[in-house]
Amino acid sequence: MTYKPVRLGVLGLGRAFMLMLPTFRNDDRVRLVAAAAPRAESRDAFVAEFGGRAYASVEELAADPEIDAVYIATPHQMHADHVEALAAGGKHILVDKPLAVTLKDADRMVAAADAAGVHLIVGPSHSFDPPVALARQMIASGDCGQVRMVQAFNYTDFLYRPRRPEELRTEEGGGVLFSQGVHQIDIVRLLCGGLARSVYAMTGAWDRERPTEGAYTAVLDFEGGAFASLTYSGYAHFDSDIWMNNVAELGGRKNPANYGAARRALRDLDPDAEARLKQTRTYGAGAEPPQPEANEHFGPIIISCDRADLRLSPGGVELFGDNDRSFIEAPLDPAPRKPVIDALVEAVRQDSAPTQTARWGRASLEVCHAILTSAARRQAVTLRKQCGIETKETQL
Amino acid sequence: MTYKPVRLGVLGLGRAFMLMLPTFRNDDRVRLVAAAAPRAESRDAFVAEFGGRAYASVEELAADPEIDAVYIATPHQMHADHVEALAAGGKHILVDKPLAVTLKDADRMVAAADAAGVHLIVGPSHSFDPPVALARQMIASGDCGQVRMVQAFNYTDFLYRPRRPEELRTEEGGGVLFSQGVHQIDIVRLLCGGLARSVYAMTGAWDRERPTEGAYTAVLDFEGGAFASLTYSGYAHFDSDIWMNNVAELGGRKNPANYGAARRALRDLDPDAEARLKQTRTYGAGAEPPQPEANEHFGPIIISCDRADLRLSPGGVELFGDNDRSFIEAPLDPAPRKPVIDALVEAVRQDSAPTQTARWGRASLEVCHAILTSAARRQAVTLRKQCGIETKETQL
Repeated sequence: MTYKPVRLGVLGLGRAFMLMLPTFRNDDRVRLVAAAAPRAESRDAFVAEFGGRAYASVEELAADPEIDAVYIATPHQMHADHVEALAAGGKHILVDKPLAVTLKDADRMVAAADAAGVHLIVGPSHSFDPPVALARQMIASGDCGQVRMVQAFNYTDFLYRPRRPEELRTEEGGGVLFSQGVHQIDIVRLLCGGLARSVYAMTGAWDRERPTEGAYTAVLDFEGGAFASLTYSGYAHFDSDIWMNNVAELGGRKNPANYGAARRALRDLDPDAEARLKQTRTYGAGAEPPQPEANEHFGPIIISCDRADLRLSPGGVELFGDNDRSFIEAPLDPAPRKPVIDALVEAVRQDSAPTQTARWGRASLEVCHAILTSAARRQAVTLRKQCGIETKETQL
Repeated sequence: MTYKPVRLGVLGLGRAFMLMLPTFRNDDRVRLVAAAAPRAESRDAFVAEFGGRAYASVEELAADPEIDAVYIATPHQMHADHVEALAAGGKHILVDKPLAVTLKDADRMVAAADAAGVHLIVGPSHSFDPPVALARQMIASGDCGQVRMVQAFNYTDFLYRPRRPEELRTEEGGGVLFSQGVHQIDIVRLLCGGLARSVYAMTGAWDRERPTEGAYTAVLDFEGGAFASLTYSGYAHFDSDIWMNNVAELGGRKNPANYGAARRALRDLDPDAEARLKQTRTYGAGAEPPQPEANEHFGPIIISCDRADLRLSPGGVELFGDNDRSFIEAPLDPAPRKPVIDALVEAVRQDSAPTQTARWGRASLEVCHAILTSAARRQAVTLRKQCGIETKETQL
């Protein structure tokens, strides 16, 4: 089926928007018609590239009648206010992960979308990556038997990328849980059916200069009996991308000669200088987004099922069966993050929700908080706001 | 210093002894002078190869006055009786891992060695592997700061290697915990200082035909604050040796064309036929032990410290520091498992105990049981019989 392009507004023209540019520039199912952002420089760049309207406030964007849906790419802690304003204006919403920082905000967002009768999709997130979706399809087919155990880990330089000060304060959504852990949780929940029962975790905040969580390890278990081990370190030492064909998170090629680059770039910067450095990576500041050569990924993931293990890679899924192994390709689309746009178009044009709804995003956020709580209390935490997978998988 | 060779007796001439042959044949610090084993075929092979005495009972071996120490390589559940008999005879003891199956047996063994005033070393175990010992030295040097997090995982075909029936019954020491998990626990305890505080775990027994634990995931935490994630699957699907330079556990080269070989070899075998197949892999049955080309290993292990991550590989330790990375080699000795013989010689000739004593082995066994208990109760289990590292590390 072909439809008229979805008329999309954008709220926030920072780093997250930058990373969506290759998609927006190459997928003609969406047309960027308006933006709202506080910086005149980025608004001007938007109008110069896409035409359309550029506003200084979310209220103006919400009142624009020529918009079907809005992509919210503002800092996490602002998501709830922005969703309420835009849902009240009748816009469908694509909100960048994590849904919010607090579960109270997440509840507000679920309620706002319900009350307005609009779709709220949490994305992009790596749970939309084509190899993850392919693995989910393979699981749903039943060919491999039940999912029994998932192992996911990722070693990155996250903690030493340029940050605004609040991104190093846990209570404001800083640290690896809300920005990074939520990806891993989203993926693992998708692979295991979504309904996590409990979590047990340890967290580490090992650098006094950046005193938020930079690492964690967690065990989740799920309705149906599957369990998962999740581990993350953002301390910029070992880099697990060597086990992902040297493909970086965003699909670019890693250059081993750049070892230590993240720490070097921050050396001798005070917090203001660091925030300014981050600013140079936003839209309208002259930089261009990375051009992916392979699918995005979130580190090595092994899925153990009754009759096969599945290993995710940037190119697809390697299947290790009882007798043979094989590789099933997940091609890179010229418009990367195509599955996110698939979800948006289906929501707007067919009134069909993806798995990654507001309730789904709240459930992943609940796990982030449960990891922090479990580590603080040194005991397992029972989960209460989980959300399963309700899709058209039977049609696959 | 040079000493007279240690006069070693061997109890049990099965698979474990086979795997020690490359060491015994190449390390002239030990001389095999006697053996005891139930099968005449293996006793005859021993005398033909090594000369010396061959007995049908442990009592005769214990009474042989020309023996300094005995290597116990009998099934796990017999270790306690055998240690009591040999310690009463005044022999120092090298007992293959795990120390025992039950903690009650482990207590008996600690008491027997103490009462007789003999050294009891638990080994070989992969905690003696040269890259592990090298990593421990690097940690003890203090150069990397504190150990904060360890991740260890291993995906093997363990559950589909030929077994005697009791090796598939957990209560008799079957399954992956006692034979395999104990290696991982030993290594992780060594890297983190030995004193585990608690464990939380999930286990999987997914094949009705082989109804013992074939997989687990566990989180351990340690005195001093380090924590560790341990994951194992023996279900013969994904093989994590691809991340260890395609070197197999025992140091041989993996042939990717052999995918699925473990399951194929068992196809259509009844339990008796399977036990007979296992027999063909023991000493005196015509087979030869594998010849290592690299150090043994127990799967990928990443150690996160304050100022560096260490990654174990069969060739040594890769160090990922704040600014640079480097590789520190751990050479393969012509007599593999040399560190085990180092420990034996030092115990017998210098009255100096290694880290891997009876108390150490009991502590690792306690973690195996705690993993089973935690998984059954779905809660963390506090550990009570842990044992630290008391070595000459300060001299390094």
